[in-house]
Amino acid sequence: MNLKNDLILRAARGENIERYPVWLMRQAGRILPEYRTVRASLSGFKELVETPEKAAEVTVQPVDLLGVDAAIIFSDILVVPEAMGLEYQMVESKGPYFEKTIKTEDDLKYAEFNFDVEDRLSYVLEAIRITNKELNGRVPLIGFAGAPWTILCYMIEGQGSKTFSKARKILYQNPTLAHDLLNRITEVTIQYLKAQVKAGAHMLQVFDSWAGILGTEQYAEFGLKYLDRIAREVNEVPLTLFSKGAFTSVEAIARLDCNTVGVDWNMDIATIRKNIGETRTLQGNLDPCALYASHAEVERLTNNMLNSFSSKRHIVNLGHGVYPDIDPEKVRTFIQTVKNYELK
Amino acid sequence: MNLKNDLILRAARGENIERYPVWLMRQAGRILPEYRTVRASLSGFKELVETPEKAAEVTVQPVDLLGVDAAIIFSDILVVPEAMGLEYQMVESKGPYFEKTIKTEDDLKYAEFNFDVEDRLSYVLEAIRITNKELNGRVPLIGFAGAPWTILCYMIEGQGSKTFSKARKILYQNPTLAHDLLNRITEVTIQYLKAQVKAGAHMLQVFDSWAGILGTEQYAEFGLKYLDRIAREVNEVPLTLFSKGAFTSVEAIARLDCNTVGVDWNMDIATIRKNIGETRTLQGNLDPCALYASHAEVERLTNNMLNSFSSKRHIVNLGHGVYPDIDPEKVRTFIQTVKNYELK
Repeated sequence: MNLKNDLILRAARGENIERYPVWLMRQAGRILPEYRTVRASLSGFKELVETPEKAAEVTVQPVDLLGVDAAIIFSDILVVPEAMGLEYQMVESKGPYFEKTIKTEDDLKYAEFNFDVEDRLSYVLEAIRITNKELNGRVPLIGFAGAPWTILCYMIEGQGSKTFSKARKILYQNPTLAHDLLNRITEVTIQYLKAQVKAGAHMLQVFDSWAGILGTEQYAEFGLKYLDRIAREVNEVPLTLFSKGAFTSVEAIARLDCNTVGVDWNMDIATIRKNIGETRTLQGNLDPCALYASHAEVERLTNNMLNSFSSKRHIVNLGHGVYPDIDPEKVRTFIQTVKNYELK
Repeated sequence: MNLKNDLILRAARGENIERYPVWLMRQAGRILPEYRTVRASLSGFKELVETPEKAAEVTVQPVDLLGVDAAIIFSDILVVPEAMGLEYQMVESKGPYFEKTIKTEDDLKYAEFNFDVEDRLSYVLEAIRITNKELNGRVPLIGFAGAPWTILCYMIEGQGSKTFSKARKILYQNPTLAHDLLNRITEVTIQYLKAQVKAGAHMLQVFDSWAGILGTEQYAEFGLKYLDRIAREVNEVPLTLFSKGAFTSVEAIARLDCNTVGVDWNMDIATIRKNIGETRTLQGNLDPCALYASHAEVERLTNNMLNSFSSKRHIVNLGHGVYPDIDPEKVRTFIQTVKNYELK
């Protein structure tokens, strides 16, 4: 199917664009009343993720309602550890919780790593197919997965953490187990990302949400090494790597075989551009809290950010997922400001 | 009283030292069984903080039991907002919780800012006096306070947060209120730090635990501006500024009128040294999780860190507070490795 709007794909590849493409992490979600209606008709977050028609419906909503230049499949990075046998619950206002965790070789019995990924995660792939039918080529659809290090964090900790000290402890006490797990997670993740492309994803993003809790050397060893393998093996569509908080590793990430590097709101785009040159597209990075400001101020802050771009290799986004209590009208102002911005 | 060991003060001032001084953030605390015994004899964390004899007792413990080169008064940064009228509870395994928070000008009625700091926080000052008597000049005593930005975060949010989006929202929606509060907090903090020196603190540290959630420009406006005032006005004893996660602001912090800059474990000491030159002492920065490793590995990792120092302007510490489940024997290995290290 021909895409009517392929702006984001061209920006990712470093091709010419007429204006900057724009979308928001977590655009399909609680900011939209229309999402909350769908969500309220179901038993919870997980039922929404696991019901392809409904997941597709909320994936398309921000395209219709906000006018973003891409859809991102409504899902969760934790579907991967769950497919491995570690079931999770999404606890309201607390986040994910896994009953079984892996802390020793013996705990490996809780998880399996050789399974038919397309079969076990068929509900995500089906949601991708339905979404593309409903989008009918209006915008590209982004598939995604968690980075191996971030998935490992959840598999060890079983939930979020301020310090992720249990996960990091294993890097010191049993690096062999950590690498063994990271290898297995990477294998499954590569299969999963390729399956999403086969199902119709036009672009992929890998989220390394807990990159920032590792020092530079440990992130190279336990994080980048596996992102590198993913980037080399998954090359069917443009790939974005977003390692949140990895301040000292941005240049190393930009050397991986990806198209786009995601940028946190508290990193400086101009500095990063200076350091990495024009080799990669940057995605980001308005502070999600900027959308709490007045409309005039949202416009000013967005234009400030756009003015700091020195080339066309940019995909506009927030520097983190949009917060659930943001007024959708402010999101519209943000998007409209990007669309009105004249590219020199 | 003459100090028998003033190594840390000389290191802070950039004077000559025979070996690197070493202490640990949170050294007085749950890692020591002797601390847990004292704690168990009381109703909870707050009673310990508010009972000068007991606070002094646990402050001295790591000097006796671990052989650190400095004591740090056992207290909490939240005694300051509490002195302002915002009482907090320390909820087991969850952290602090404030019933009353400040989100609008109207909420200012919950707090007062003109009060006798020495009177209201007399229990901390008394603990400092008792500690010094018990230390009898063995090592210097460090006093501390939270940075205005971090205290503001707690006053607005009322508890910890992953995003501190309520606090950051106010920076966009009502910067005037934010600055007003930051000014008032700064005033009280300066009085409090000076009172600690008068009571006997030989050195001071200001903790900006939530520095890292602000972008560079916002941290300059809402964080550094107030640290600058503290650094200029509090100059009786050496001052350490520790802005956790402020990757892009380290050079700006080093330009403030402080002696020592605290360094996170995921920052690179060699890079920071290159950027700031020999103008300031650096404090840090072993990964607290490194103490989960074997004794031999703790020794190796500690020596690696020490080898990365290119000058004598260093105070050795972890890059964050020691985790409560760390084996005290590992802490002793860390400390002994630093003490054995031959300074060139």
